[in-house]
Amino acid sequence: MFSAQTYESRRAHLQRIVSNGIILLLGNADSPMNFEHNIYPFRQDSTFLYYFGIKEPNLAAIIDIENQETIVFGNELTMDQIVWMGRQETIQEKCFNSNVTKCLPFSDLSNYLENVIKRKQTVHYLPPYRSSNKILLSNLLGTKISALNPSEKLIKAVVAQRSIKEKQEIIEIEKALQTSVDMHLLAMKITKAGMKEKEIANAIQHLAADQGCPLSYPPIVTIHGEILHNSYQQHTLEKGQLLLNDSGAETDMGYAGDLTRTFPVGPRFSETQRAVYDIVLNSFTTARNLLRPGIAFKDVHMQACQALVEGLIELGLMRGNPEEAVQNHAHTLFFQCGLGHMMGLDVHDMEDLGEQYVGYTTEEPKDTNTFGLKSLRLGRQLQEGFVLTVEPGIYIIPDLIDQWQAENKLSNFINYQKVNEFRNFGGIRIEDNFVITPDSYQLLGPELLKTTIEIENFRSQYVS
Amino acid sequence: MFSAQTYESRRAHLQRIVSNGIILLLGNADSPMNFEHNIYPFRQDSTFLYYFGIKEPNLAAIIDIENQETIVFGNELTMDQIVWMGRQETIQEKCFNSNVTKCLPFSDLSNYLENVIKRKQTVHYLPPYRSSNKILLSNLLGTKISALNPSEKLIKAVVAQRSIKEKQEIIEIEKALQTSVDMHLLAMKITKAGMKEKEIANAIQHLAADQGCPLSYPPIVTIHGEILHNSYQQHTLEKGQLLLNDSGAETDMGYAGDLTRTFPVGPRFSETQRAVYDIVLNSFTTARNLLRPGIAFKDVHMQACQALVEGLIELGLMRGNPEEAVQNHAHTLFFQCGLGHMMGLDVHDMEDLGEQYVGYTTEEPKDTNTFGLKSLRLGRQLQEGFVLTVEPGIYIIPDLIDQWQAENKLSNFINYQKVNEFRNFGGIRIEDNFVITPDSYQLLGPELLKTTIEIENFRSQYVS
Repeated sequence: MFSAQTYESRRAHLQRIVSNGIILLLGNADSPMNFEHNIYPFRQDSTFLYYFGIKEPNLAAIIDIENQETIVFGNELTMDQIVWMGRQETIQEKCFNSNVTKCLPFSDLSNYLENVIKRKQTVHYLPPYRSSNKILLSNLLGTKISALNPSEKLIKAVVAQRSIKEKQEIIEIEKALQTSVDMHLLAMKITKAGMKEKEIANAIQHLAADQGCPLSYPPIVTIHGEILHNSYQQHTLEKGQLLLNDSGAETDMGYAGDLTRTFPVGPRFSETQRAVYDIVLNSFTTARNLLRPGIAFKDVHMQACQALVEGLIELGLMRGNPEEAVQNHAHTLFFQCGLGHMMGLDVHDMEDLGEQYVGYTTEEPKDTNTFGLKSLRLGRQLQEGFVLTVEPGIYIIPDLIDQWQAENKLSNFINYQKVNEFRNFGGIRIEDNFVITPDSYQLLGPELLKTTIEIENFRSQYVS
Repeated sequence: MFSAQTYESRRAHLQRIVSNGIILLLGNADSPMNFEHNIYPFRQDSTFLYYFGIKEPNLAAIIDIENQETIVFGNELTMDQIVWMGRQETIQEKCFNSNVTKCLPFSDLSNYLENVIKRKQTVHYLPPYRSSNKILLSNLLGTKISALNPSEKLIKAVVAQRSIKEKQEIIEIEKALQTSVDMHLLAMKITKAGMKEKEIANAIQHLAADQGCPLSYPPIVTIHGEILHNSYQQHTLEKGQLLLNDSGAETDMGYAGDLTRTFPVGPRFSETQRAVYDIVLNSFTTARNLLRPGIAFKDVHMQACQALVEGLIELGLMRGNPEEAVQNHAHTLFFQCGLGHMMGLDVHDMEDLGEQYVGYTTEEPKDTNTFGLKSLRLGRQLQEGFVLTVEPGIYIIPDLIDQWQAENKLSNFINYQKVNEFRNFGGIRIEDNFVITPDSYQLLGPELLKTTIEIENFRSQYVS
């Protein structure tokens, strides 16, 4: 946990911004696997963590702005539960650690809110993403789930506050990245032909766990890097293939790391692999070098796309004017998604609060129609203190090629004949995390090998 | 998966027993961690697995008994999703593997049920344990969540069917136990002073994952074996302590193993530890030898308790007549919980369907008041084909001792002075899994070292 003062002052700031009514923040409950009491590892809600720092299921908090009062609602263990679960720090004690002095039994929350509603005070709450909290909110507020109406004012206030990372948060994210880098180095050490993808994923998860870190998201460890959301990990690795490893750790406090490296199953890249890799790396460097306060991330994305196109033209897969190609979204045959996203207490930071608030603004709204841009999670102007990922890639997706070619889509920019020679190439992504500084950016966490030479030098120590 | 015929004949049997109306079976959805799309590993509902064998989120099935029709509702991937997630076996194909020939889009389910409700046919459904399915049922049936009314007829039919394990299910459970035994042997190999409990838990989870198995429940790996539901694993192991390891694997098809061993952090038990261990082992053997069709598991539990009491009298912690002590529940100062539970597709098999149906019957209802018995999950008469755990233990819980001693509770049976000499002893549990055979029982899975001599011989190969 951070200092009690940290949580208190975060809440004080939130109160000033929201300025009236009651703020209701729900923690998470345990999530059942195959029956109620067989549960997944507990993950606290990130906003609750941000304002209270308490990792404990079945809590809720009220911030009564007019009365300047903060109350945490939760049930202390009964003697029966102490027999079963052992003595633990009480909720009262935990609350004290974040300067909350008033704790009440969870059952009091319902009455409390009834009175608030009678007094016609506004209850500000965030959009629930877990079904258990949808039901809880519906019961607490006497509103149908379908009629729940989260507070835009609260959402915007939370997003504004959580978007600018404090120094101590940056330190936490760098801790997550230290473990994440260790995970990636381990993967690069142990990967060899004959292993299954899953074995690499298991090993890096073990390493993270031994460092006290859960994974910040289900890892993508695959020889089919072109499949963007790939949870299948049963392939056996073969020499000549590339392995894409997109994985990161989360600290005990909940801060995420999110790194991707793509490296050969053997000791070296093939010439084709190297060429494509260098295009992605050049796009990565182009994007990274543009990072600074004031630039719209959508523009960074577009520049990264142009760098990809320039490389693909050189390689013969695309043609024509690179700028025009990008304007026509021709690059989306190879790069179907976005360049990056905000990161913090969530790997896609605050995704539960809505992309329109986190990655965009009313003045810079999201393009929700155009293939490619509709998958760009972050488009808005960057500010000092934003933490984000930069993760360009080239993904050769046979189904998509066939679809486009059947329409002869954008054939002035795409050389389909050449593209088809690459149809089993797979995919490459390179991803690091950055914080925006007063005039540019800073890499977060330790440097992790990135050039083909660095990777080959490292790999050749372990495989032949 | 088992053969398509297996699933078809299981459903046919269910239809015959339920005999009228519509059976609605819901699969599970993905469970969000900190935002909707950051999800826990998917776990299918066990009953859905039992009747369909399909591991895929967002499915539901209808069995229309009168019309002899089975329909699975689920959405095939769109082209957009194929681009993102890769080509996968279709739901149609998966359904075909369990002899379901009719698949409809998920959105058709709502209309389907509306018509059923209009026709005033009974819709039989099971009690939902996940909030997402509570909401789904509420929406599908136009009923408030609080007014949902699961079908006792369906529950009883499912419980009766799933309680008697088929030969092929026993084989699956033995697979789960093969991995579970490997996990326990690994723990006994690597445990040494200076390690953290968590490191042992991480290592066994890694081993299970490499064998393609998730854990069937959050593992309990602790030097505080007396804490029955202990998820804290941050203690550093010290020579002289005992480590209790309660963990098991689940096969890809969902069948569980559930084993507990308690062994010294050093190579040998202390004399006191050996004495208490042997009491638990004797209780275990007593209970196991009683297993056979027709005996009430509550009686087995009571006999196991009496064996504990006899040992504790010999050790000086209890006194008086053992039978009387058990009748007065004096043993519950040391053994606060139940002797075992049903096991199968769930580690606590069918716990979601209700203990009153799974572990008890109307004629043999549960004692829900008496400390000790109220935690006995299984009390009913055993039948051939039941799979269950036997897991006696001795747990020295300081808080409970203080509570009882303050009331001078059952002091004719308890020697509090002697008990207090043991107050920091910790806890010991020994647990194996059995299937009930026509005239007795059979151990499931490979034999796993159990006597103090076996454990010491094994441990002394790895620690000194």
